[in-house]
Parts: sequence; C-alpha cells; structure tokens
Amino acid sequence: MEVTNRYITIKTQVDGDPKVSDFELKTSNLPLSLDPGSNDIIVKNLYVSIDPYQINRMKSQSSSQKATATAGVITPGEGIDAYGVAKVVASGNPEFEKDDLIVGYITWGEYSFLKGGNCVLRKFTPMGLPLSYQVGILGLSGLTAYAGFFEVCKPKKGEKVFVSAACGSVGNLVGQYAKLFGCYVVGCAGSKEKVALLKEKLGFDDAFNYKEEPDLKSALQRYFPDGIDIYFDNVGAEMLEAAVANMNTFGRVVACGVISEYTDATKRAAPSMIDVVYKRIKIQGFLVVDFMNVFSDFLSTTTDHLRTGKLHALEDISNGLESLPSAFIGLFRGHNTGKKMVKVADE
Amino acid sequence: MEVTNRYITIKTQVDGDPKVSDFELKTSNLPLSLDPGSNDIIVKNLYVSIDPYQINRMKSQSSSQKATATAGVITPGEGIDAYGVAKVVASGNPEFEKDDLIVGYITWGEYSFLKGGNCVLRKFTPMGLPLSYQVGILGLSGLTAYAGFFEVCKPKKGEKVFVSAACGSVGNLVGQYAKLFGCYVVGCAGSKEKVALLKEKLGFDDAFNYKEEPDLKSALQRYFPDGIDIYFDNVGAEMLEAAVANMNTFGRVVACGVISEYTDATKRAAPSMIDVVYKRIKIQGFLVVDFMNVFSDFLSTTTDHLRTGKLHALEDISNGLESLPSAFIGLFRGHNTGKKMVKVADE
Repeated sequence: MEVTNRYITIKTQVDGDPKVSDFELKTSNLPLSLDPGSNDIIVKNLYVSIDPYQINRMKSQSSSQKATATAGVITPGEGIDAYGVAKVVASGNPEFEKDDLIVGYITWGEYSFLKGGNCVLRKFTPMGLPLSYQVGILGLSGLTAYAGFFEVCKPKKGEKVFVSAACGSVGNLVGQYAKLFGCYVVGCAGSKEKVALLKEKLGFDDAFNYKEEPDLKSALQRYFPDGIDIYFDNVGAEMLEAAVANMNTFGRVVACGVISEYTDATKRAAPSMIDVVYKRIKIQGFLVVDFMNVFSDFLSTTTDHLRTGKLHALEDISNGLESLPSAFIGLFRGHNTGKKMVKVADE
Repeated sequence: MEVTNRYITIKTQVDGDPKVSDFELKTSNLPLSLDPGSNDIIVKNLYVSIDPYQINRMKSQSSSQKATATAGVITPGEGIDAYGVAKVVASGNPEFEKDDLIVGYITWGEYSFLKGGNCVLRKFTPMGLPLSYQVGILGLSGLTAYAGFFEVCKPKKGEKVFVSAACGSVGNLVGQYAKLFGCYVVGCAGSKEKVALLKEKLGFDDAFNYKEEPDLKSALQRYFPDGIDIYFDNVGAEMLEAAVANMNTFGRVVACGVISEYTDATKRAAPSMIDVVYKRIKIQGFLVVDFMNVFSDFLSTTTDHLRTGKLHALEDISNGLESLPSAFIGLFRGHNTGKKMVKVADE
C-alpha cells in the first residue's frame, strides 16, 4: 500500500525576511510497507509546530546550524523536520504499534517516515487533554519556558522578572510560571489585545505594547522603578539593550531567542558592557535540548497546573498544510498569539 | 605639627578621552595631630595604583558610579582615592602605630587622611618582597586576575583561554595563572614588544598584536582553530564580538573591564546573540570587591609562586606625583606594560 504525501519545503535557502513565495507544497509517494527488522516507523501527522528558530536552518549559512542534531541546514526541496504530534500508521519497530500517538520530530507534511524511530521523544495518551497541548504547553515550548526559567534564571521569590515576546509560545509560559513561583512579572508584546490578554487572562502584574514606546529604556524604567532582576529575552536587539540598562546588581539575562535578529543580521544588540561589569550581570544563552533531564518534572508539574486551572494554554492553531507558510511567516510579524501550530489532520 | 600635602585632582568632570590638562596638582595643609579617640589615621603614601576604572568615576554620569562604595563620582578639586601602599605617620586608632605599613584606599597625593582607618585593607610586612608588589600582583589587580579566572571562569585543565589587554595589570596575571593551571593561553596586546614579552617571558602559548590584524574574527580563528573556551575580556568592543564568534559550545566570557568603551561611549560591542543562544555562551561581569573572601588563598598561593619563580611580576612604575596624570592617560593609549603605579615617596 502507498499513500500520497504532501509536504512543505523551501525553494531556495532563505536569507533575510521570509516570504510565502519562498515555500512550496510538494508531493511524493510513500509506501506504507516496512521491513519488520528496520525499526523504522511511518506516522500520520496531526499537529506540527511552527517555531521561529527554523528560519536559522533555512539560511545558506548560520552559526546556529552546528548547534544540535536538529539544528542542521534545511535543504531546498526536502522535507522539513519539526516538533509535532502524530499517529503511527505503520511500524517496523517493536516499541510502536499502529495507532500509537507519539510526539517528536516529525515533518511539515501529511506523513513522516521516521528512520529507526529515533526522532520520537515519547508515546503518550492524551488523558483528557487536547492533543495540541503536547505540541505547546506540554511539549518543547513548555519545557523551554520551564527549564529556562527555573534552571537557567534560578529565580528567587519576589524577584522582578521582565519577559519579551510575552504572548509568544515560550514567553507567555515563563510569565505564568514566574507568577506561580512568586515573582513580580511584566511582559511586553506588540498589540493592545496582547497586552490586555497578558494582564487580564494570564495574570501578569503589568504589560506594555513596545510599539507604542519610543524609548524602551525609559519605558522599562517606568515599569520597573526598582530595577529588573531577571530578563527572559526572546527578541534581542534594542529590547536587550534597554533591559541591561535597567538591570539590578547581580541581574540575569537569559537569552532564549533573538527573533528580531533572525531575519535582519544588522539588528544586533549592543548592551552596555560597563553595566554588565559594574552590575555583575550574567547573560546566558541556552537550548532546551540540554534540559531533557527535567522533562518528567516539567510534565507532571505542568499537567497538574493545567488540571487545577493555574496555568492557561495559549494556542494559535492554523488549519491545513496549505496554511503553514503564512503561519510561519506570521511569527516574524507578530501575528501569532501563543503557541503557533498547524493542524494537519484530524485524529 | 603640620605638613604640606600635594595631591592630584580633576579640574572638571572628564567625559571622553582624558588629557593632562584635565588634571591639576593642588596643595593643602594637613595637621598631623589626631584625637586619640577618633580612630583616624594619617599615612604617607609610597606607591599609588593607576587604574583604568577611575575614568568612570571622573565622568559627570556613569552607571558604574553606583556600583560600590569606592566607585562613586570624583568631585573636581577634591582628593582622588586609589589603592596603594603607605606608611602610618600619625594614628588615633589603637590598631595602627606610627611606621606601620598598610595597603588600602589611600589617595593620589603625598599624604592621606583615613577617616576611622576604614579604608585600610590590612597591615603588612614586606617579607623580602618589593613594596610595589602589594599594589599590583599581591594587591587588587592580582586578586582580580585570581578570582576572575578561578572563581568566575571556572576553568578546566586543557581549556583554551583567550586574554585581551594581556600585558595589562590583570591580563598578564590571568594568562600566567591559566598556564600554571594547565590551560592553553593566547593573549593579545598592542605592540610587537608586548607580544614578544608575553611569549618569551610570561610563558603564553601564543600572542598577537591586534593592531596588525585587520579582521579580528579571522585572527582569532587562526589562533584558536579549535575555538575558545574562556575569553577573559578587558577591552569590550570589536574584540568581544570577534571572541564570541569564535567561542566553543558552553564557552564563558568573563567581562572584567571595557577599556575601549570607557573613553568612547559609541564603541559598543554587539556580539551575535544567535551565537550566545546556540552555543550556550555565558557572558558574566564581575567586580573584585565581591571576592574578598578568597584574598587569603590568593595571597598565599601567589606569594608561593613568586618565591618559586613560577609567577613573574610585570610592573610599570612612574616616579613622582607630577607623573601621575600622564601615567593615567597612558593607560588608555596602551603606554603601560604590566601594573601601572606611581612611586610617590621612598619608604
């Protein structure tokens, strides 16, 4: 038996601001028969994750491409691997059976052929929670927020936390974890609606629209009259400079993402190193792959908080593979509110 | 009894590149009689330290001025406190007697009135070592190098270490400590003579003249084909950018000083935050005042290494108070080789 697999790919390497025309939908035939000794599996993709970091893999060259096994360059014409939820349709691997639900690195397409089953992180049962949660709040975005905040920021109760891209997949959760932990949290986002959501729905102490602030340094001074202890940075550029200028002594900047700089290499942050020295500031980059050891803690804590209503899953789901390129491009234009993903198929 | 005290001061706040004409020599009368209950002491200054960070205190405004008690703004016309070695000439403090040798915060002048004796770090006996050692290699410059390297960089044997301003008061010692510890060490400096000294006298594995390198990023690629694990940054600006571009995964940048930026606020480093994230780089500022707890370890280790000839004291001593302004200005022009100080008087 064989299926027709439609998938999204790039036409050429993408340097600079991505456009819908950089992408195309291709079709291939995928035989569903697998040699039982192969360990390979074939899955039907249900939800695929749409993440800003993928743009770095689409560039002709980026230092990011050497970082991890899943950060390598994406070749035009080929399938694009991405985090997501899928259902096993054929298995040559004794650990998986037809109809198992899995999360892991699948592809921006209808089906994924997973060599040796290596890209599967785990099988799961939904336990009454939406499947999409596995992609966002219970997936790598959630773990990024959890590990980034608790393991890298090493917060203390009462500390003052600033989160940029606070309506993004990671930012909104960092703010929510920080509030539950007992910190004072201010977020910034790019629209009035997002600001309202942060304050009214997600429980941030305060929030502001950075597009309405001509001077980010004085904006942060207003929102943090006693200074910032932790800055969870998802954007880089001018916001990082303004945050460093407002950091307290022994403040920590955790660099999770640099979305402002991904599509415009000229937009580099130049934080005051005099501030860094005299205020003994630590700026620390991290990747979620280094924190898989806290995955089970993260999963049980976050599931509990979801069940008790203490955490809110902020999701932004597009429908159908065709919507994927514009969903991806929208990330760099601030179109998403919460975790962006594409629903490829019904279960 | 009363002495005439000549001292150096600034005429106005100094913003930008300092000039000799920004300074003046003033005179005041200092009575040598002290109330026995006062705890004050008066010392005759022997060697005073000349440090780049003092420029930040001379500015009309700098975020650095709030950092510590000894980092506050310097007022035109008043005495300038600085680290140094002195001899007690009058004491109202039971802990000090006439002729005691002390190190601590004295002044850029012939005598210092030390209110309550608070600015004295310790009394010492020279134990056969030159008095000047107490200002540099056994003083705060030495502790900065020791604590910065061992406590902040947290080195592992075999790691590759890059030191900028490697012929400076701190840089030369960082390189020497790193070699003794078992690291591979490359330094950069601003002249052929300094480069030769690093390689031939101080035991650096390699060194280069940054003024002869049109492209610092490729220079570092040549000197570190396997990447940099630790960058001990004394300069900021383009060198910091080039170092970050050449850092290995989990590399550490320890920001000790930013001399390129002290006198030119437009010269800000804009390191790639994409590198910081993907390579999980940590950039950490520090001040020596936070490491007084390791002073005694530092002192005994360093004294031992000096006695066994394993460490070399690199000093650059000017004579007489009149030489102080040009000695200070020379720091920003790369004139000094090793710890810069002024010998104010013979013991």
